[in-house]
Amino acid sequence: MSERPSQKSGSIVWHEGLGREARFAHLGHPGGTIWLTGLSASGKSTIAARLEEVLVARGRHAYRLDGDNIRHGLSNNLGFSAADRAENIRRIGEVARLFADSGSVAIACFISPYREARAMVRHLHDAAALPFLEVFVDTPLAVCEARDPKGLYAKARAGEISDFTGVDAPYETPERPELRLDTTEHDVEACVEACLGLLSERGLV
Amino acid sequence: MSERPSQKSGSIVWHEGLGREARFAHLGHPGGTIWLTGLSASGKSTIAARLEEVLVARGRHAYRLDGDNIRHGLSNNLGFSAADRAENIRRIGEVARLFADSGSVAIACFISPYREARAMVRHLHDAAALPFLEVFVDTPLAVCEARDPKGLYAKARAGEISDFTGVDAPYETPERPELRLDTTEHDVEACVEACLGLLSERGLV
Repeated sequence: MSERPSQKSGSIVWHEGLGREARFAHLGHPGGTIWLTGLSASGKSTIAARLEEVLVARGRHAYRLDGDNIRHGLSNNLGFSAADRAENIRRIGEVARLFADSGSVAIACFISPYREARAMVRHLHDAAALPFLEVFVDTPLAVCEARDPKGLYAKARAGEISDFTGVDAPYETPERPELRLDTTEHDVEACVEACLGLLSERGLV
Repeated sequence: MSERPSQKSGSIVWHEGLGREARFAHLGHPGGTIWLTGLSASGKSTIAARLEEVLVARGRHAYRLDGDNIRHGLSNNLGFSAADRAENIRRIGEVARLFADSGSVAIACFISPYREARAMVRHLHDAAALPFLEVFVDTPLAVCEARDPKGLYAKARAGEISDFTGVDAPYETPERPELRLDTTEHDVEACVEACLGLLSERGLV
């Protein structure tokens, strides 16, 4: 892993590996994580998907982490107990940090209802001196429940699903998010523009 | 996570997210994983570090996964039991797959001594239709042990470290690696060139 062969070959003496500064300089930007949190059906995924599309179209390496590519892969051995949910968010935080370190914009898109879990991911990034931008997709529960595209709120109300955020499990609103998106006042494009503005402000694009 | 707001805003109807094909088209290349396996002190890290450096200098997004950034992060809650080692490789495989899916070249650099574990990671990639290129850094044990840059072989021989690959734990050589690097015959630059040749052959650069 970190073995350091003493054998020297040609002009190559030894490679510490590409430093982060050199990498970011090559890419023209530092990497970082933008973390969208909010209720189910708040619009997180739609905003994240569009944001990713715009960034990649502009030539900015970006990648979306969401339930689809995490729960079926890295976290497929985790359930939905409190401990497993915390471990799930921890793993996502670590993966986002790797993407950020690689120079990419990691777009994490998870309900992530607990302040402590989000603070832990922020801390992971702070400790690595990588930007972590928390975006609160602030769609009122009533609006999310009226949308209910997959009928999950209806099932939760009927007691067919338990521990459903906003119904019988808490959503702890962010206290000091870097950005709050009011999706009742702004459409998807405006929300994406606000995210791009934040990324630009922090020098990520 | 995968909620699908029915609210339509402006010209944006709904975003499935950026498809992999569109992403790879934007980047000009598909993503994939190159996996370096071999004994401790075989030269894996040196080759991987130089490969990453060359790729990034050419403008190709690439990122190295190694013990330093994995064992201190994503796998920091795993030990070195057989089960934990398998879970460690599984997580690395999943992360490599995410990087590959993002269009990056994931350069994984791990002793990964067990055929079954490597086959599992290959399977993860096959199932996702993403390239997995196994590179056997084939440095004889005697050479690795003579290098012993961190004195680990000496400690293992003295019984101060147990389960050390090549000493009192097996290294199962790859049976059909995509590439075998003989570091006793070729220097680092030649090994990196061979890796670049393989990546080029598979359309990854």
